[in-house]
Amino acid sequence: MSDRMSRPVAESRRAFLKTGALTAMAGGVLAACDNKGAAAQAAATVKADSDHSGGSMAAHPIAPPAGNTAEDMDRMHEAGVKAFPAKTAGKGNQLLAPKMIGGVKVYELTARAIRWETSPGTMVDAWAYNDQLPGPQLRVREGDRVRVILKNELPESTAIHFHGLELPNELDGVPFITQPPVKPGQSYTYEFTVPNAGSHMYHSHHNAAKQVGLGLLGAFIVEPRDPRPIERVDMDYVMILNDGFHGYTLNGKGFPATEPLVAKLGQKVRIRFMNEGMMIHPMHLHGMHMTVIDKDGWPQPAPWKCDTLNVAPGERWDVIVNCTMPGTWAFHCHILPHAESPHGMMGMVTALVVQK
Amino acid sequence: MSDRMSRPVAESRRAFLKTGALTAMAGGVLAACDNKGAAAQAAATVKADSDHSGGSMAAHPIAPPAGNTAEDMDRMHEAGVKAFPAKTAGKGNQLLAPKMIGGVKVYELTARAIRWETSPGTMVDAWAYNDQLPGPQLRVREGDRVRVILKNELPESTAIHFHGLELPNELDGVPFITQPPVKPGQSYTYEFTVPNAGSHMYHSHHNAAKQVGLGLLGAFIVEPRDPRPIERVDMDYVMILNDGFHGYTLNGKGFPATEPLVAKLGQKVRIRFMNEGMMIHPMHLHGMHMTVIDKDGWPQPAPWKCDTLNVAPGERWDVIVNCTMPGTWAFHCHILPHAESPHGMMGMVTALVVQK
Amino acid sequence: MSDRMSRPVAESRRAFLKTGALTAMAGGVLAACDNKGAAAQAAATVKADSDHSGGSMAAHPIAPPAGNTAEDMDRMHEAGVKAFPAKTAGKGNQLLAPKMIGGVKVYELTARAIRWETSPGTMVDAWAYNDQLPGPQLRVREGDRVRVILKNELPESTAIHFHGLELPNELDGVPFITQPPVKPGQSYTYEFTVPNAGSHMYHSHHNAAKQVGLGLLGAFIVEPRDPRPIERVDMDYVMILNDGFHGYTLNGKGFPATEPLVAKLGQKVRIRFMNEGMMIHPMHLHGMHMTVIDKDGWPQPAPWKCDTLNVAPGERWDVIVNCTMPGTWAFHCHILPHAESPHGMMGMVTALVVQK
Repeated sequence: MSDRMSRPVAESRRAFLKTGALTAMAGGVLAACDNKGAAAQAAATVKADSDHSGGSMAAHPIAPPAGNTAEDMDRMHEAGVKAFPAKTAGKGNQLLAPKMIGGVKVYELTARAIRWETSPGTMVDAWAYNDQLPGPQLRVREGDRVRVILKNELPESTAIHFHGLELPNELDGVPFITQPPVKPGQSYTYEFTVPNAGSHMYHSHHNAAKQVGLGLLGAFIVEPRDPRPIERVDMDYVMILNDGFHGYTLNGKGFPATEPLVAKLGQKVRIRFMNEGMMIHPMHLHGMHMTVIDKDGWPQPAPWKCDTLNVAPGERWDVIVNCTMPGTWAFHCHILPHAESPHGMMGMVTALVVQK
Repeated sequence: MSDRMSRPVAESRRAFLKTGALTAMAGGVLAACDNKGAAAQAAATVKADSDHSGGSMAAHPIAPPAGNTAEDMDRMHEAGVKAFPAKTAGKGNQLLAPKMIGGVKVYELTARAIRWETSPGTMVDAWAYNDQLPGPQLRVREGDRVRVILKNELPESTAIHFHGLELPNELDGVPFITQPPVKPGQSYTYEFTVPNAGSHMYHSHHNAAKQVGLGLLGAFIVEPRDPRPIERVDMDYVMILNDGFHGYTLNGKGFPATEPLVAKLGQKVRIRFMNEGMMIHPMHLHGMHMTVIDKDGWPQPAPWKCDTLNVAPGERWDVIVNCTMPGTWAFHCHILPHAESPHGMMGMVTALVVQK
Repeated sequence: MSDRMSRPVAESRRAFLKTGALTAMAGGVLAACDNKGAAAQAAATVKADSDHSGGSMAAHPIAPPAGNTAEDMDRMHEAGVKAFPAKTAGKGNQLLAPKMIGGVKVYELTARAIRWETSPGTMVDAWAYNDQLPGPQLRVREGDRVRVILKNELPESTAIHFHGLELPNELDGVPFITQPPVKPGQSYTYEFTVPNAGSHMYHSHHNAAKQVGLGLLGAFIVEPRDPRPIERVDMDYVMILNDGFHGYTLNGKGFPATEPLVAKLGQKVRIRFMNEGMMIHPMHLHGMHMTVIDKDGWPQPAPWKCDTLNVAPGERWDVIVNCTMPGTWAFHCHILPHAESPHGMMGMVTALVVQK
């Protein structure tokens, strides 16, 4: 490298050694992030993200958050990790046991406005099924008779689309095309025999950019009548990816409030990725590869391996992880501003813990 | 759920019962969308989209469009559906019959500025081939001799790149690398024997972010000499996805001006997705899966199934749909702000109609 | 087409014939790009890009850059092409020869702040390993014993994650989970036996949205003990895609400073795409298809062909190109604002040159 290239570096290092931080070079994107609360973290992330695709490319965000030394930053990063998994009020994606009525599995889903805690201290307005976000997990078997009763306690009409299920048209959940809208205060019943196995979703299909964005979504898992050998696993985990109104979340929570996956050495874990957001999220697992078996509930012609799986809005991808490596493995979206801020990891980060 | 979590919900419901809308919680992203015109719809969509990846995550967009009740919103949603397929001036992607000159299929493409109606009442400035957007569909057979004569009536130089065709370098259409620019008022002729089958594209490769963005693009379909059995279909449909200057469009139109695909029960439909925009568009078909057969005109090693197919800029994906389920099936980009606003469906939405 | 549709076109053409440019229709996105420097080009691109997903859809960017005629624009486009490959200070992704110490391949990586020239005259602040961006290419063989010594001369703590390598947990590089942060002034040693072949990466996993964004990243290539026949190639090229703080780059440089790939007719070239940015980049090769063989270092079940390959952040895709067509072939991201501005090609553009 030329002298000309190396001199500024040397100067920078001298400056750093004097001041403990390159504050003379401040003024960039990340310089505004001097508060320590979760709200500030979220704001910082949003800022960084929009700036990356926007006007700040010319900025030189060398400086640490104003007033923070490397030690300050490390403390914040450590606090986030130590807090994981952090307690928050509410848990989404809980398995909902059906009521059995005359051989029919009956599920009641009530849509209403709630307040939701995405990470410790961060409360958001949400619209949810049964007061949880994502809505309760419905898990049935191919061929089951199912009744879903939707109660609308929202101030807008709504409807449910069973995304991925190959149902008769009148059950497709698109107001004014396949059914009337379910108005505020009304109920509506969907009843059907479950046609196809796989990882599916249910969500609003009315004013959906807003209603799904606010939380009217959940997993609809259909177990096959005849599972393939590769489907025999020790743990079956649904991971719903989201962005938008509630920030970057996995199953409705942002790190450190996300839920770790805990398995034992040698176990096989199935992960069902579902994207209910508006952006792609390439999910990266550390330490072990993932074997992709299904796309949108349909088997791939042959399983294939990866460590980073790009999940687009509306897609579902099923993978198997053979837990061959003990330890706590980071597991996160690889669009880095969805996973880390100057104050530490946040948003779409969890861990796969493989216990000896 | 704790008392603390449930109280605000109860209050919200009481407020709703009194006022019919949670207006006390207004002030969010979608609150500005109180006009009913298509332009306002487009603006609202743009706003929502940029906000989702930007600064509005902290907002609580619970409120309906200001001054609109749930009934008002339903009326707008219904009006959109009832208007589909809405008439607009101009139709793009029309099959262009070649002139046969001495065994050569000759196509003339004139590039010029036009006004284009993307949805009822929404006129945009566009640059187009033969006054249509997308440009005329060129459909030839492997081994055909083809001549494309480009006439430039634009105020800028231009050139045509045949995206996906494996042509000799001098026909590659990149000014200053493989040819001179075709200046305003000039013509330029490309002549070749069609080398490889598949779903390809033609578009400008000069100042292309602007020129393709404004509409200088079209489908170039090459039918194979020896079709595979899976290619024997009842309908062969090209769907060009776009975003950018003209909003979210399918074949140059936004819902409700998009064109439905109409098939009979039991028929097989081939859909050739092509993305000429700047964003991914994961296309979701309701009710029936799609079987993916080709990528960029090349057969996949084995067909595979999905219901949501992520199409990135420059990509082409060919799928087969077996029309086994009668009805009108929504078919849309699953980035929801590309498909629905508080005023109803818009943009990248169409339907597959399966008639009994 | 109706008279009504064709009239504005005719008027536009008359206007153009009079003025040489549709300046009466100016006011759009691209109208601001009237400077000729690289910085202005970058700014224009950023503007166009953010506007495309944002508020400018309603604009009608018909006009050329203010004050520029078609001739002016062509001159700028030509100058860019003629300058390619343009000289800049510094070269990234250089193969680093290890020191052999007792049978161990030892690599020293020093992280520090530098100034980096992305394209002629465009200097950016960067954080880099060994003063190059991307960092030096580490290339080893399956089963090798490797020691990587990280020296931190940055004003922040850091750490290295070997993305894709299946290492024991204590070598995973995530501060406070698998190791302490490497503080300013400290060194840290990673030593391991290389477990799995393929195209991998190394990068910071501390404050990573900033640190990787600023350049703390590089390729970690593991050659297999037993190469497959399809891996026997004449050239093996690593292409690291990036966006963010330093603009749109291939191996740390923007066109015309990107490096061409030069092969002889009949040769086979392997390209290892790696995305270290925050956006997808669908890479399009002109003239010849690419055969996809590996994803994240793992063989696909069967090779498959394409001409446009969508690479998401964190992903690696390996392809083979059979150089059957002589000439200079454009090779670029097909999100067009990542590749071209009104002043010519820029950013994520290079060429594959096939020499006779």
